Amino acid sequence: MTALQIDPPARLLMGPGPINADPRVLRAMSAQLVGQYDPSMTAYMAETQALYREVFRTANDATLLVDGTSRAGIEAALVSLIVPGDRVLVPVFGRFGHLLVEIATRCGAEVHTIETEWGTVFTPEQIETAVAEVKPKILAVVHGDTSTTLAQPLEDIGAICRAHDVLLYTDVTASLGGNEFETDAWGIDAVTAGLQKCLAGPSGSSPISLSPRAVEVIESRKSIEAGLRAADGSDEVRADPIRSNYFDLGMILDYWGPKRLNHHTEATTMLYGARECARILVEEGLDDSIARHRLHGTAMLEGVRALGLEPFGDLDHKMTNVVGVYIPDGVDGEAIRSELLHDYSIEIGTSFGPLHGKIWRIGTMGYNARKDAVLVTLASLEQVLRRAGVRVTAGAGASAAQDVYAS
Amino acid sequence: MTALQIDPPARLLMGPGPINADPRVLRAMSAQLVGQYDPSMTAYMAETQALYREVFRTANDATLLVDGTSRAGIEAALVSLIVPGDRVLVPVFGRFGHLLVEIATRCGAEVHTIETEWGTVFTPEQIETAVAEVKPKILAVVHGDTSTTLAQPLEDIGAICRAHDVLLYTDVTASLGGNEFETDAWGIDAVTAGLQKCLAGPSGSSPISLSPRAVEVIESRKSIEAGLRAADGSDEVRADPIRSNYFDLGMILDYWGPKRLNHHTEATTMLYGARECARILVEEGLDDSIARHRLHGTAMLEGVRALGLEPFGDLDHKMTNVVGVYIPDGVDGEAIRSELLHDYSIEIGTSFGPLHGKIWRIGTMGYNARKDAVLVTLASLEQVLRRAGVRVTAGAGASAAQDVYAS
Repeated sequence: MTALQIDPPARLLMGPGPINADPRVLRAMSAQLVGQYDPSMTAYMAETQALYREVFRTANDATLLVDGTSRAGIEAALVSLIVPGDRVLVPVFGRFGHLLVEIATRCGAEVHTIETEWGTVFTPEQIETAVAEVKPKILAVVHGDTSTTLAQPLEDIGAICRAHDVLLYTDVTASLGGNEFETDAWGIDAVTAGLQKCLAGPSGSSPISLSPRAVEVIESRKSIEAGLRAADGSDEVRADPIRSNYFDLGMILDYWGPKRLNHHTEATTMLYGARECARILVEEGLDDSIARHRLHGTAMLEGVRALGLEPFGDLDHKMTNVVGVYIPDGVDGEAIRSELLHDYSIEIGTSFGPLHGKIWRIGTMGYNARKDAVLVTLASLEQVLRRAGVRVTAGAGASAAQDVYAS
Repeated sequence: MTALQIDPPARLLMGPGPINADPRVLRAMSAQLVGQYDPSMTAYMAETQALYREVFRTANDATLLVDGTSRAGIEAALVSLIVPGDRVLVPVFGRFGHLLVEIATRCGAEVHTIETEWGTVFTPEQIETAVAEVKPKILAVVHGDTSTTLAQPLEDIGAICRAHDVLLYTDVTASLGGNEFETDAWGIDAVTAGLQKCLAGPSGSSPISLSPRAVEVIESRKSIEAGLRAADGSDEVRADPIRSNYFDLGMILDYWGPKRLNHHTEATTMLYGARECARILVEEGLDDSIARHRLHGTAMLEGVRALGLEPFGDLDHKMTNVVGVYIPDGVDGEAIRSELLHDYSIEIGTSFGPLHGKIWRIGTMGYNARKDAVLVTLASLEQVLRRAGVRVTAGAGASAAQDVYAS
């Protein structure tokens, strides 16, 4: 087997994520390693925690990284909070709601769902009715679901959960950094994310934050590895132990906390990357980053509309950073994507489940929430649509986007 | 919160791992991203699989990466193979044996152990006796346990397992690439590793390989996510589903295999790194890499002996890439480590459990299995020991190492 040096084609990734990493993130990741307990490493860990507190808008001490992709963060939160038999309510409005159901089920939860058609979200009243009926221990809901491009409003859900003594978990992988999100103000107990969307990094590290009451549940289930236990057995295994070692947030908190108790070997290079993602966001300012995503998302939306494409779903609840567009009748959606990729080196997204073959998903997020990325994508899409026989007004897409920038 | 650009101190990491990454690996990881299903990405995934087949010395089709640290690979293998109630036998000869017990227990296994004193390994007869008595479904054993520096001989264990119809799992995180290891010739059913030891990469990706009979067990438990299932329900959830979604190797195999069924978003940058680690190893030649680790490990062993330090454990079964040395009487082991780190920027390792405060662990692995790294470490250790009041013969350590290189 001879394999050549890594030399990927230069792509402009305008799908629903992963997108291109900010070159600053890749440069940070090329730094040499230090030891797991080197003072510089533990300082980087502490700084990463402080930076993500700003990104999540939280005072939660328990803010850290799970070493794995965004789905690792989801599973860590759920397996650490769910005692088998616990009732979990999942409002499902897209693929990633199904994922929460799937993971909670595997954690041994009694899972209840409410569903709404893909392209719509729930009202707070619908969620409160279900909470009152199901009486779950945990409400697990996706914030932004890229499968439908929508964001479930969560402003009022925390208060509903407190009133019913329910823990509120949410996945903000797709939304964080590009859409308003407030961990503390909205009363979120557990939140998990990923780097590969608005945070402009590669997949592989999952920032998470836990409220004091979530930590309390986790601490009550904590155990210490046999190989590390005190000789007097004072720290032995508790009842209802967490079913996973890798995702045991109690242990992970002890590793990130002042005890620095050995758990996994921190993925140093991914930590360098996650830290830089947050540093870029904090430097820009979270509000400015959200405004930037809104601006370029709006430009893309108006651009595709001007090309004659119909946007998908409830636009009042669309995430800023991705738009779904119906594939025009008689057009082979995959052929368009393929021509864009192979001739223009631009990637736009396909879709899953009930939307498969019906919509494309076009992202404007992270490093690619930029004017040039929007204009180049619209200009190229116009060419490819025309060659496929779609009637498009010459220049309409880029021009509509320019109007947004001018206004 | 203002955090500065990542700028770690220049360390020479001569502990039991993580060690310095080969700069080639960091360069590969600085490449820009491509989409998850980009032809270049799926080609990199296939090449990574082929490269790790060479590294693991296997024809196993099911050879791939788990996105997480080495302990993620361990948990993925165990949770995918263990049906709750299954009997698992773990021969424990160090901390990472305890970790296998811990993870298997959390997977719901009925775990049986045999233990041997830290610093020793088991004979094949001891293992066979326990297998015959316990009649486990799975024998889970660490190959090289860095906590004791020893490698458990596994050449004969595969045949014992086949004779008793037992699946053989082993963790080679600490040993792979620096010590002989043969997946197929030794009859290993599941093996997991990490990048941060002899593979010269950062922690955060776990290469694994599964035999056809391990795959058969996993396939029989496979399920497909609700959000991705066929409309006719032909692929619904099976009995005894795997308790984890993130670590469901059936799903991960479908993602890496020809179906390319979406699971997690592959950690592209870590994949670039893992691929480069294997590419470096395959270019050097696995036998040459093992010989290099043996040479530099021997030089370090003879060097520390010549400094008057007593090596720990059964040297006939010591891994090539790490040596344990007793901390001399009356010496504060942590003060020595601290002076080496802060004044010489060289890290050597502390130890866990029964060996805590008794031995240091000094590694010579991956990129740091080099003559200059060995000599600089011995030269510096001599200075620090002398300042701490230990009687050392001037030049003895480096000189003994030079003798090894000359012979």
